[in-house]
Amino acid sequence: MTKNELFENIKRKKSFLCVGLDTDIQKIPQHLLQEEDPIFAFNKAIIDATADLCIAYKPNLAFYESMGVKGWIAFEKTVRYIKENYPDQFIIADAKRGDIGNTSAMYAQSFFGDLDIDSVTVAPYMGEDSVTPFLNYKEKWVILLALTSNKGSHDFQLTEDINGERLFEKVLRKSQEWANEEQMMYVVGATQGKAFEDIRKIVPNHFLLVPGVGAQGGSLTEVCKYGMNQTCGLIVNSSRAIIYADSSDKFAEAARVEAQKVQVEMAEELKAIL
Amino acid sequence: MTKNELFENIKRKKSFLCVGLDTDIQKIPQHLLQEEDPIFAFNKAIIDATADLCIAYKPNLAFYESMGVKGWIAFEKTVRYIKENYPDQFIIADAKRGDIGNTSAMYAQSFFGDLDIDSVTVAPYMGEDSVTPFLNYKEKWVILLALTSNKGSHDFQLTEDINGERLFEKVLRKSQEWANEEQMMYVVGATQGKAFEDIRKIVPNHFLLVPGVGAQGGSLTEVCKYGMNQTCGLIVNSSRAIIYADSSDKFAEAARVEAQKVQVEMAEELKAIL
Repeated sequence: MTKNELFENIKRKKSFLCVGLDTDIQKIPQHLLQEEDPIFAFNKAIIDATADLCIAYKPNLAFYESMGVKGWIAFEKTVRYIKENYPDQFIIADAKRGDIGNTSAMYAQSFFGDLDIDSVTVAPYMGEDSVTPFLNYKEKWVILLALTSNKGSHDFQLTEDINGERLFEKVLRKSQEWANEEQMMYVVGATQGKAFEDIRKIVPNHFLLVPGVGAQGGSLTEVCKYGMNQTCGLIVNSSRAIIYADSSDKFAEAARVEAQKVQVEMAEELKAIL
Repeated sequence: MTKNELFENIKRKKSFLCVGLDTDIQKIPQHLLQEEDPIFAFNKAIIDATADLCIAYKPNLAFYESMGVKGWIAFEKTVRYIKENYPDQFIIADAKRGDIGNTSAMYAQSFFGDLDIDSVTVAPYMGEDSVTPFLNYKEKWVILLALTSNKGSHDFQLTEDINGERLFEKVLRKSQEWANEEQMMYVVGATQGKAFEDIRKIVPNHFLLVPGVGAQGGSLTEVCKYGMNQTCGLIVNSSRAIIYADSSDKFAEAARVEAQKVQVEMAEELKAIL
């Protein structure tokens, strides 16, 4: 998917919501455990209930890997289901991968090969040759970790170098040598508030993937105030607050209600640029 | 496995070799493609041919994931085969994972749960709460990326802060607040030569996982000169130079010959401390 196609979807749906499919067998409604593939059954119901309200889905690989082979099967089925039924959805493999060149190339193949996923989150610690193999696929995206939503983001990402540049700023600046805004996005946590201002000085035109609204406590209003640009430039993710809104057999309807609340807020925020 | 058990294995086998199972379907001998599970068939033959010469195996997840469900099955079979047949081997899931706390907990479960793997490589970029969930398992290890073997290691890992501390040094120092040498190791590339001296000032007693000998060009002599400590403190990995030594039906014997060359060198280096 191109940057322009993504923006067209945002305008059409008046939404820049990404639903995070952090599907945990311990947390899904009990009655689904009778299904042959409970994880996929849950995802399918959530997707069918929310697809008109969001522009992206983000399965986090950790939740699938933790179930071994069964989890991997559920992950692949979920991706294929979205692609077949909702081809306008931008799919993010939230995997936070990154390794030496020949190995990152294998990870790129995992997600961009047969599965044909749109994007993958990548960790920057290992530098250029750990990232560039993901850029060899047309219209596929690297979403590089910059300033994450968790407490541990303070441990290293905020470290200032001798010129006063913080590590996440260096990641933003340096990585622009590897790809432009048509192939690179950045992860910036919604909990980071005003840091969005500093980030927009370095990457004014890039899309940012913003986790941390919902269960992690970030504010959508603040993210939009400091982070939105002329092509929206934001994909805001909510996982737990939507998918676990209810644990009864009405879970999908409840997820839809939560997704719609966010979408209505987003439509309001989008008025600033549309 | 405890640190002491690992050192006992090193003394008994006169080896601190780790064989990297970076098994690529494109590179394994042609005749194996007729097997039901070519990846596992290859791994099994390599393991049987090298197990007395090494103390660890390190499957890199990228190579398995790139084959989807089949790859994940081959990965699990490989781990179980090692555990059943060579229980003294230290298994490293080279996965370079790391995510927010609740998600890292899922990754920890993937590797330390049913699969009961000894250790997993973790990327430090997201800080403390991305690492600590892996530390909740007894006698399981985090192997944290510090100074990697690739060219891109220069992009961020060597950045000096205002006190002159480089990022990899900060990772080494800071992470000692989270776990001690009984649960934490560090990845330091063999290509980093004299940096081992600086590293040993910060982590004198920890084990280091050292990739980059072999295909990547690092020197075993130099690694030992600057990196060995009184309990060896080194697990040196070689992947491609051993497992792809030959592509005929004699591949396993050829792998053994290469592994033995390294083991003989290692026995010589170990004389300094045994």
